[in-house]
Amino acid sequence: MTARLNELTAGKIADGVKAGRFTAEAVTRACLERIEARDKQVKAWAYIDPKLALEQARQRDSASNKGPLAGVPIGVKDIIDTADMPTDMGSPIYKENRTAGDASCVALVRSAGAVILGKTITCEFAGLTPNVTRNPFDLDRTPGGSSSGSAASVADSMVAIAFGTQTGGSVLRPASFCGLVGYKPSYGIVSRQGIKFAAESRDTIGLIARDIDDADLVASVLTGRKPTPARDTPPRIGLCRTHLWDDASAETKHAVEDAAKRLAAAGAKFQDVSIPASFDALAEARTIINPYERARAMAHEWATNRALISAGLTRQIEEGLSIPQTRYTQSLSRIKTCRDQIPELFGDCDVLLAPTATGEAPKGFTTTGDPKFQEFWTALHVPTITLPTHKGPNGLPVGIQLIARLYDDETLIAAARWVFQQLGAPH
Amino acid sequence: MTARLNELTAGKIADGVKAGRFTAEAVTRACLERIEARDKQVKAWAYIDPKLALEQARQRDSASNKGPLAGVPIGVKDIIDTADMPTDMGSPIYKENRTAGDASCVALVRSAGAVILGKTITCEFAGLTPNVTRNPFDLDRTPGGSSSGSAASVADSMVAIAFGTQTGGSVLRPASFCGLVGYKPSYGIVSRQGIKFAAESRDTIGLIARDIDDADLVASVLTGRKPTPARDTPPRIGLCRTHLWDDASAETKHAVEDAAKRLAAAGAKFQDVSIPASFDALAEARTIINPYERARAMAHEWATNRALISAGLTRQIEEGLSIPQTRYTQSLSRIKTCRDQIPELFGDCDVLLAPTATGEAPKGFTTTGDPKFQEFWTALHVPTITLPTHKGPNGLPVGIQLIARLYDDETLIAAARWVFQQLGAPH
Repeated sequence: MTARLNELTAGKIADGVKAGRFTAEAVTRACLERIEARDKQVKAWAYIDPKLALEQARQRDSASNKGPLAGVPIGVKDIIDTADMPTDMGSPIYKENRTAGDASCVALVRSAGAVILGKTITCEFAGLTPNVTRNPFDLDRTPGGSSSGSAASVADSMVAIAFGTQTGGSVLRPASFCGLVGYKPSYGIVSRQGIKFAAESRDTIGLIARDIDDADLVASVLTGRKPTPARDTPPRIGLCRTHLWDDASAETKHAVEDAAKRLAAAGAKFQDVSIPASFDALAEARTIINPYERARAMAHEWATNRALISAGLTRQIEEGLSIPQTRYTQSLSRIKTCRDQIPELFGDCDVLLAPTATGEAPKGFTTTGDPKFQEFWTALHVPTITLPTHKGPNGLPVGIQLIARLYDDETLIAAARWVFQQLGAPH
Repeated sequence: MTARLNELTAGKIADGVKAGRFTAEAVTRACLERIEARDKQVKAWAYIDPKLALEQARQRDSASNKGPLAGVPIGVKDIIDTADMPTDMGSPIYKENRTAGDASCVALVRSAGAVILGKTITCEFAGLTPNVTRNPFDLDRTPGGSSSGSAASVADSMVAIAFGTQTGGSVLRPASFCGLVGYKPSYGIVSRQGIKFAAESRDTIGLIARDIDDADLVASVLTGRKPTPARDTPPRIGLCRTHLWDDASAETKHAVEDAAKRLAAAGAKFQDVSIPASFDALAEARTIINPYERARAMAHEWATNRALISAGLTRQIEEGLSIPQTRYTQSLSRIKTCRDQIPELFGDCDVLLAPTATGEAPKGFTTTGDPKFQEFWTALHVPTITLPTHKGPNGLPVGIQLIARLYDDETLIAAARWVFQQLGAPH
């Protein structure tokens, strides 16, 4: 029994702990055993202190008020502050860095009964420079980034759910590469107190989980709502191949089109949705807004520890420092114009269906994969989710992406649940 | 000579240090002497370490590349991280709290040659609960808040310029009460890495200075632009009494109308601008958005140190926790609708002229004054500035407020300079 507790969903763990069927301590022990057995290969964790994790678990077990996340083990991306564990940010600059408190997202899940299991490995400052984490489905492949450890640890049943952050595609891409649900809420609805910014006008805390309900459960705690009710009727779906369709691999194209066919057969109403040409402005996010904001967010490290910043990030900061401020605010304005067209883009669709990533996780560790199919939507501030519905030619996971209007997060979750009920996991 | 260096503007200090007319050390010494002489009464500083300040100054003096802020002493509101000084946030929870690094705004001005003189007193977590600082113009009155120490220290010539933050009116109100320039940039253009959030969708780092050019100079360093060029022609000004006009004191009404009359006489084209009724939604910022976001930003302190939070802030957090998430996102959407009407509101005006505060600084220390004339614009994300152009019946400062469109910060600065040239300081 103990050996399997680490494989349960967050919802089942909370239910079991609340009902007294098993203890938070037993769940934590099962997770720690799995980590002990596997993390030498997977390398998902930046920090694990078994004693501290078990201490938290025993506190949960002795608490009279259990909370909605009773005993749920959670992994925390290592750019998110934790009062009792170091926050190294994937950088030698912050080795053993201790912060005065928990980030708000951490404090909120702790108050709801969760056990902070440890810190998951991030790319350097949540950027594009790969770290050491491997894909549990194939140890010779990237798990995606920058929330690399969050995805690998959840995929390998080391923890039930993990926090990631997304600036380009850092939640959805690793989730897709690791066969998981990855949920990026609407921009601004989850407090970012206590995280390191990459690009402040886009950074969003998201969730990587094995289950849609788990992502919804933790999001409900973060935002102070109830878990999203189920929907019985099929959603209206816009099939949005996007202007980048030609850059998608055969497996990604197949996943999206196969999903559309089967969902239509199950009763979903479909219409084609095309990205307007004016949305070209979104590409500026990567070349203007990201470097400009990154250079400012890294002002302290740039001034005091430049030699310890990687070559790739150094280039991005130098680029950011060379961008005139008016160019930056023009880009912000152009992207706002795109955001304002979202209602028109959606028409009467509840959600859009689009590719999550270019394909399966690429081989090797020189890149964490291409963010182009994720960053596009991140720049629009809309909520998105990836679902692990397909496999590629190497038997590796391929996700599909659903997108909703700004603040329509519950529509997104309910539609995702309906969609996944129809499609199920790949065979 | 030394005794007067603390009274110079930031621009004059940088020029003098660069030209070798005096040293950064001499400037810092003059500031420290003024603080020594006056701060027992004014109580502007949360932390001053003379040795550390002088050490920084000597480093500036020995640097070969002086930078645009060479030797400029800057005060830092105590919710903004500093690597070498504690950040107490006006709360017993964070007594002697040390952070791993500088906030980005601090790192950027240090890199430009500034001397971080010390930390200025803030209301508890940049909220409404008054702290101990006094108004240098009348020690029996509030200096305003929450950037209380930033305003009092600059007004009393203890430092050339100081960082504040504005969520409601925490930069402009204290600046107005203390006879200073207070500038809140467009939301989002100054990196907030390393500050404690009050309400994340509105928090903006601003500047409190004795001079428009000083605020512009530091803002240019923060955003990577050149200082704003002067304008020769009078701006087109919208006279916006606002829907709150009846709540303004006689001195505030006089300041706005006298300014309009004299500026029109100097050649400025005026038109009346009325706030549309739909802007009532902005009032929700205080009752919905602020408490909702505050409760999340304070999740860690609420979980771990509730007994050390003041009664007023406790009420705000409890209120925030009781607000349903859909109510919050509806408010965000309604305020966005108001923001989208800004171009229409401005018509062909360059800037609007409006009251800064209800009147002179109120007597006593039970309140830091009413934010209603400032928070309105903060919710709209537009850049605003207050200018110290008038006095009230007690001989205390009364400011006027200018407002520009989002990202039109340079238009705002240039117009403010023209306006102040016409009106000058009050007699």
